[in-house]
Amino acid sequence: MMMRHGGAMNTAMMFAKKGLLGGEVGVPNKWGYLVRSTPLVRKTSTFTANLSDQKDNKNVDKTPPSSQGGAGDNKDEKGITSYWGVQPSKITKPDGTEWKWNCFRPWETYKADVTIDLTKHHKPTTFLDKMAYWTVKSLRWPTDIFFQRRYGCRAMMLETVAAVPGMVGGMLLHCKSLRRFEQSGGWIKALLEEAENERMHLMTFMEVAKPKWYERALVITVQGVFFNAYFLGYLLSPKFAHRMVGYLEEEAIHSYTEFLKELDKGNIENVPAPAIAIDYWQLPQNSTLRDVVEVVRADEAHHRDVNHFASDIHYQGRELREAAAPIGYH
Amino acid sequence: MMMRHGGAMNTAMMFAKKGLLGGEVGVPNKWGYLVRSTPLVRKTSTFTANLSDQKDNKNVDKTPPSSQGGAGDNKDEKGITSYWGVQPSKITKPDGTEWKWNCFRPWETYKADVTIDLTKHHKPTTFLDKMAYWTVKSLRWPTDIFFQRRYGCRAMMLETVAAVPGMVGGMLLHCKSLRRFEQSGGWIKALLEEAENERMHLMTFMEVAKPKWYERALVITVQGVFFNAYFLGYLLSPKFAHRMVGYLEEEAIHSYTEFLKELDKGNIENVPAPAIAIDYWQLPQNSTLRDVVEVVRADEAHHRDVNHFASDIHYQGRELREAAAPIGYH
Repeated sequence: MMMRHGGAMNTAMMFAKKGLLGGEVGVPNKWGYLVRSTPLVRKTSTFTANLSDQKDNKNVDKTPPSSQGGAGDNKDEKGITSYWGVQPSKITKPDGTEWKWNCFRPWETYKADVTIDLTKHHKPTTFLDKMAYWTVKSLRWPTDIFFQRRYGCRAMMLETVAAVPGMVGGMLLHCKSLRRFEQSGGWIKALLEEAENERMHLMTFMEVAKPKWYERALVITVQGVFFNAYFLGYLLSPKFAHRMVGYLEEEAIHSYTEFLKELDKGNIENVPAPAIAIDYWQLPQNSTLRDVVEVVRADEAHHRDVNHFASDIHYQGRELREAAAPIGYH
Repeated sequence: MMMRHGGAMNTAMMFAKKGLLGGEVGVPNKWGYLVRSTPLVRKTSTFTANLSDQKDNKNVDKTPPSSQGGAGDNKDEKGITSYWGVQPSKITKPDGTEWKWNCFRPWETYKADVTIDLTKHHKPTTFLDKMAYWTVKSLRWPTDIFFQRRYGCRAMMLETVAAVPGMVGGMLLHCKSLRRFEQSGGWIKALLEEAENERMHLMTFMEVAKPKWYERALVITVQGVFFNAYFLGYLLSPKFAHRMVGYLEEEAIHSYTEFLKELDKGNIENVPAPAIAIDYWQLPQNSTLRDVVEVVRADEAHHRDVNHFASDIHYQGRELREAAAPIGYH
């Protein structure tokens, strides 16, 4: 996810690891990030506090209670019955504090391009396009009734839905690439990136709007329905599926614009931006919810472009892999 | 996928994009890679050769035949009926040639650690472990009969299977993270990385062993069965699922060791390494199939570790997200 959209400064951090065995300390990179790889030995962890540090996995002393069988001590030199713990690398920020996120690393962060054209719209002309368009428009009606002007809650709950299409599409393309022995053109990665980006929107908004029990129940139900419906839809007509997602993103842009209006009017409190958002979008430390909504809206505009593009490729009788995917173009 | 396993030199390329609009040329990074972003305008493509270049998507002249409806020219200034093409960035290598791969970029390549311990084995003690172990062992028997010593063909076909678990697991964890409003601990990314890595093994081996029609038919059938079986298995018992994958990887290591023996004996021709492998694993230009099999085997050893680790976490009554995932540790 290294490439970012228009006007954004992209940095991929350079780091050097000088050997994992022995746990040597990494060399700080030019941005001041220190990556420390932990040795490839089985280390004591908070889970298995009784295991002693060992190299080469010889002579295991204990097995964790839940995986202990009748074997007791492991007599086989390389056979292990106990903890296979693999420690991830630790990353230190330039200010000396530890990078706290596991699902993204410093070099996966970016600055969103908020100058992206938000007004672009695909005019539906064919039957499938119109069906996609009116499906989305008709879904808007009950959604507006349920959420009213509670845009924080709306954003949080709808991102649980928005993160599904990219994962379903990516997975189906992955399976197709495998069984047909074909290259992917980068589209598996592009769609999985979209899914992860939408999930990051959720991880951000759930810091701001905490879900109530009935909202959680609704999310679970909707996921069950939407996942399967989109899965079937993608199998039957990826052209339709991508077009529908393009229209969903157009609606998302509209909703986030309304969100900004409510923030500007003072109807929704403009709280400080969550830490995860500041790190993920490389926002200034004093950023607010308004800044977050702006960059999220820019992301949605890119997803709109990518999905309408994907649908167009299908419309032209081609497969996605025939056109290089816009990877990193969120 | 920036972090690589033990002893490997990791490089994340630094590149700067100075604005996409207007198509300015990027600045070559210190490793000589030039990233050129193409402008965010709808460009003429090989698909829609009749579309003229336009900025701001005004006054579309033509719609591609397959998406043309009754609307003809688009009177709506921002409404577009025709091509939404998004050009991906172009990357130039230090030697002036263009980076030819769409599914991975230079900064996602790595040097595998071939010193990884290949002999580690999880000794099955509990009932579920034994079931996982014997399932894998029993699957080996028909596989050995079918492939005999045709290890090139075996590698190619089995990678179509090996790339499934990571995708299924990653997708299920993704959906769980969404509906429970929970962080993932990096495990979605770790498992999707595994799936993509296995798919790259396939993309490599299919350059060496071309599948026959009945092998293709077998792969399609096996995917249909295995995908659904693993999906169900993961829903019922992720502990069992990960353990089984750990054992599958142990078998893979054994098969690749046999592959190396056949290459060394001269029974299988040690052809030059495919270009995709040289770029993906940062292999020397004069590398051979033998070098490729060595690095692929090292990858499988890491997948073994990650999956046995994941199973252990479940055995300890925890969820994966409670332990930071070993991202980039292939």
